[in-house]
Amino acid sequence: MIQQHELVLPRFKRGYHLITNYLNKAVTLPEQGIMHVFIKHTSAGLTINENADPSVRADYEQVFNRLVPENEPYYTHTAEGSDDMPAHIKATLVGSSVQIPITNYRLNLGVWQGVYLCEFRNNATSRKIVITVYS
Amino acid sequence: MIQQHELVLPRFKRGYHLITNYLNKAVTLPEQGIMHVFIKHTSAGLTINENADPSVRADYEQVFNRLVPENEPYYTHTAEGSDDMPAHIKATLVGSSVQIPITNYRLNLGVWQGVYLCEFRNNATSRKIVITVYS
Amino acid sequence: MIQQHELVLPRFKRGYHLITNYLNKAVTLPEQGIMHVFIKHTSAGLTINENADPSVRADYEQVFNRLVPENEPYYTHTAEGSDDMPAHIKATLVGSSVQIPITNYRLNLGVWQGVYLCEFRNNATSRKIVITVYS
Repeated sequence: MIQQHELVLPRFKRGYHLITNYLNKAVTLPEQGIMHVFIKHTSAGLTINENADPSVRADYEQVFNRLVPENEPYYTHTAEGSDDMPAHIKATLVGSSVQIPITNYRLNLGVWQGVYLCEFRNNATSRKIVITVYS
Repeated sequence: MIQQHELVLPRFKRGYHLITNYLNKAVTLPEQGIMHVFIKHTSAGLTINENADPSVRADYEQVFNRLVPENEPYYTHTAEGSDDMPAHIKATLVGSSVQIPITNYRLNLGVWQGVYLCEFRNNATSRKIVITVYS
Repeated sequence: MIQQHELVLPRFKRGYHLITNYLNKAVTLPEQGIMHVFIKHTSAGLTINENADPSVRADYEQVFNRLVPENEPYYTHTAEGSDDMPAHIKATLVGSSVQIPITNYRLNLGVWQGVYLCEFRNNATSRKIVITVYS
């Protein structure tokens, strides 16, 4: 069985933001299955990581900015601002979807796992995600 | 329900290539579901990113070549050419599969999203992908 | 149909380890479907890459340590050791799940593909994975 919901998230600032609660509220989970979460954008991404200490998410911003710096002289896709081309690469590095097992009517995440919206643009609009649950 | 198709793509040169059309032609899409696309190789990958401006895909080549340079003195897996070991790492960074929601009989991609075949070898053969649609 | 199994892997040392055999033994595979493998941790990951030459997995360790170095002065999440914050980033770069098509009752991997457990901590405990097969 397939359940599907399209969701518009609130507008987040550049950085890494826990969105696990939005996923839990959007769907009635089956006893067993998978939740697939997909972001319909090319300059933001989704990943699963540490849900407790905000310093992890702050360090993500520092590390990814160094992995894919802005204003490199070899960039040719520069018309949309210095944060745009790095945002595309970062989106590929983290990925545009996550899949989470569902067990006993709950997301079967590890104790320290949460889902991050990775916002790579300085001035992004609201981001759309599609949640598909199959069971 | 599961539909599955194995596809041999045309031989692409090193770089990033839109293959969304191959996916749309391969399968009759259900009303609702997920398409999983898997590449059966370890020196090429799949990602979802900007489908409009070819300069994005050109910049991908520059950025990934700097993230994972060739001919590093610490590489030990060197027998298959200087592009081989970086190709393996790049394949892990982008990933070997993408999943796309299907809604109203269509791939529910964002307006600017397309699926890239990421070819990391200088002289690759044709790449095999497996498309699985579940609904 | 959904089958789901939670598995505790043996404790692996820091590095990249083939775990394909554990996946094959855990589940009776259907004729056609998908296997989703999820790791319930934020400092280890899963990827699919070369299954034959151990030098590839040794080079992975070298490359990822240079991509995300330890002891960077800008890290603020440092309380759990110098390998911890880099482990979180590496986990996001490789990802916390892999999906593999199932065809004719077998994992439909390419000839050279295997599933890696990527252990990023110096002294990790056993890692839990959730295997979900849908068909």
